[in-house]
Amino acid sequence: MPVRRSKVLLVKWIFENQHKLQTIRWCSSSLRYKELEETSTQGQLEQEPPINASIPGVKPRPQITPEISFKHDDLQVTLAAPYQLQRKPDAIDLGFGKYFTDHMLKIQYEKQLGGWQKPEITPFEPLRIHPAAKALHYAIQLFEGFKAYRGVDDKIRLFRPDLNMERMNLAAARSGLPMFDGYELIKCIKRLIQIDQEWVPHSETSTLYIRPSLIGTEATFGIMAPESALLFVIMSPVSAYYKASSDGAVSIYADPSVVRAFPGGVGNRKVGSNYGPTIDTTARAATMGHHQVLWLFGPNHELTEVGAMNIFMVYINEHGEKQLSTPPLNGLILPGVTRRSILELASQWEDLTVKEEVMTMEQVIMLNNSGRLLEMFGSGTAVVISPISRVGFVDKEIFIPTMKQPQPVFQRVKDTLLAIQYGHIEHPYAVVIS
Amino acid sequence: MPVRRSKVLLVKWIFENQHKLQTIRWCSSSLRYKELEETSTQGQLEQEPPINASIPGVKPRPQITPEISFKHDDLQVTLAAPYQLQRKPDAIDLGFGKYFTDHMLKIQYEKQLGGWQKPEITPFEPLRIHPAAKALHYAIQLFEGFKAYRGVDDKIRLFRPDLNMERMNLAAARSGLPMFDGYELIKCIKRLIQIDQEWVPHSETSTLYIRPSLIGTEATFGIMAPESALLFVIMSPVSAYYKASSDGAVSIYADPSVVRAFPGGVGNRKVGSNYGPTIDTTARAATMGHHQVLWLFGPNHELTEVGAMNIFMVYINEHGEKQLSTPPLNGLILPGVTRRSILELASQWEDLTVKEEVMTMEQVIMLNNSGRLLEMFGSGTAVVISPISRVGFVDKEIFIPTMKQPQPVFQRVKDTLLAIQYGHIEHPYAVVIS
Repeated sequence: MPVRRSKVLLVKWIFENQHKLQTIRWCSSSLRYKELEETSTQGQLEQEPPINASIPGVKPRPQITPEISFKHDDLQVTLAAPYQLQRKPDAIDLGFGKYFTDHMLKIQYEKQLGGWQKPEITPFEPLRIHPAAKALHYAIQLFEGFKAYRGVDDKIRLFRPDLNMERMNLAAARSGLPMFDGYELIKCIKRLIQIDQEWVPHSETSTLYIRPSLIGTEATFGIMAPESALLFVIMSPVSAYYKASSDGAVSIYADPSVVRAFPGGVGNRKVGSNYGPTIDTTARAATMGHHQVLWLFGPNHELTEVGAMNIFMVYINEHGEKQLSTPPLNGLILPGVTRRSILELASQWEDLTVKEEVMTMEQVIMLNNSGRLLEMFGSGTAVVISPISRVGFVDKEIFIPTMKQPQPVFQRVKDTLLAIQYGHIEHPYAVVIS
Repeated sequence: MPVRRSKVLLVKWIFENQHKLQTIRWCSSSLRYKELEETSTQGQLEQEPPINASIPGVKPRPQITPEISFKHDDLQVTLAAPYQLQRKPDAIDLGFGKYFTDHMLKIQYEKQLGGWQKPEITPFEPLRIHPAAKALHYAIQLFEGFKAYRGVDDKIRLFRPDLNMERMNLAAARSGLPMFDGYELIKCIKRLIQIDQEWVPHSETSTLYIRPSLIGTEATFGIMAPESALLFVIMSPVSAYYKASSDGAVSIYADPSVVRAFPGGVGNRKVGSNYGPTIDTTARAATMGHHQVLWLFGPNHELTEVGAMNIFMVYINEHGEKQLSTPPLNGLILPGVTRRSILELASQWEDLTVKEEVMTMEQVIMLNNSGRLLEMFGSGTAVVISPISRVGFVDKEIFIPTMKQPQPVFQRVKDTLLAIQYGHIEHPYAVVIS
């Protein structure tokens, strides 16, 4: 179909020449101008009202209607040629996010072309990005992370991907980036996984990590919402995120002089801006022999997150009960999918009290000194569950007896999650995709 | 020289294939592996100790020694072919950062190849970026902005570029990105400007805006300092940043529920992470008819910055003197080059008291109500001086009589700066480059 082909070529041209678009629009004798005008009148997106979900009194922008999202039915697939296929690394050498599969998914957003364009699966390749793209200067970018697991039955499962889509759209709304129908993106990602299915490790210690990103590609210097964007999805076979200490646990460092997030900021959205400023602090913790930074907040040193994980504590509460606690979602904390799943699962366990509550360093020290603190662990898609046995805090070293419990909660949580993820038990959290 | 050429090709190959490097390093029979090893022993950069200049007791990482920076003497220039040259837009249509010159500067950093590579000037072109590059996911990115002015004598001048270089290195240290010798970068940029000198507008209302950026290009998912980076410089002929209101001033909105920067964060470094989270708030201010957001901090609503400007206030102080004030550099405020220049210049004016002091919204309202507040204005490279005549604050509208003063300080400051920048007066701030 020549019409379709010419539109595809036009989209390509726009992508590579967006910095010239303004000039073309002003040159009314240009044929390309006419093409642009015609295209942009078809289903043009209204500029959506700005919104900050964290501000009292301002309601979140509603989920975009499917009509103006991209659609899986429009997905175009170009398979890699045999010579482009890469050899798969051994499961033992994977590390985290060092290898990438043979294909990727790309979806462009061009306001001048009516918004979202057709999704495309192509061979894995470098992105061509205009050097003035807002994503490179003003961190107009966000991402997600979830995994595809190869189960005991050889079926491939995802774990609650709808929650990642919901969070990705909230981050888009907060960043001036276009929203979309998460269900359509999941369908496109399923197709991508099916094409690269042999990259899902045949192993219960490795998985295929899926990384959707959405970046602002408009090539102008104004600090404002971009009129063009690129949603892309790449996938990486991964094993452990951390190289744990000899006791199998990690060590974390809490520095009260640095802050990850603050009220009125973006600590509860998965945007790049939450990570760049942490590199330096994390590197400093590493030189002191710690795996990660425990981010504190406020004068009473409230615990918020650990590196890229949510944090949990198990202790004997004032009623003599065993209690599993994690800080509440107060705007400073990423609403983790693993965090939420742990809270939901553990609240059904009758021998455990489960609570979202503010936790301070003073409490940690007091509980630990009195022998009531039993465990501390981090949770996240990348790490699953990561037990913590040491906390550095200013000039103190606090040793947590996480690895000394006879039947630790962290292990029970981890076993339950893995059993769902790898299909040992049937559970609605796991979505079989092939 | 075949040796040099093979090294250049190798660098290109590395840049395009960095995700495969680890594999190659493990394959000891590979010729490329041997080449890499040989190269990486020549002047390999030591991993620098992490550092956060804002933390008490931790000293800033010292300026990198010129030996391990890139050097202007190694600069390689590839000129655009005649068909690649673009028509220059009319000075009246420039806007801010919509057009780009014919050439750009690129300098790669590859730890495995010994650090900084040779600077290159090439035709302006899209960047090829690996989709897993840390700059796209974790906002490991920073930028600078300064201008080239075409003076009354047709000479081209820069304004204190050494201060931009200093700030850029501080941002690099804070972001886990490699530092460099700022003097060498200025020399490379001078060459770039000379090549594209016809892009420096022949006008005193337009300039050539210079945008150096440094981004982390390592293509792995770990949230840590990148082992490869790209420093690139693009240039854009620009006119006014804002379309001012009919009175020639701008209007700003102060929302106490949103926060730009926080103690222990990166508010005093010019990194992308300071900007992405502001898009949404700025768009909201725009729907209310304001040009920019006035960022407040703390329970007493201290003024910090306005959009991408530093803020100044002129008022009659308790001694009956006319006082020019701006908030002090407390870690939340970008140390602006224009800000510093204004403080230095105005402190020599005998009819004006100049002070860095904390300014709260309560003070602004009190001074304005009592008729003692005379002016408010923003300063920055992009805007130069931008008078402010209206401040929205929660449900109040505060009208500042900035445009009603007979001989306003903002105009005197602006005239002085422009006189230096366009060569009407000789001043050490202005550096003639050709």
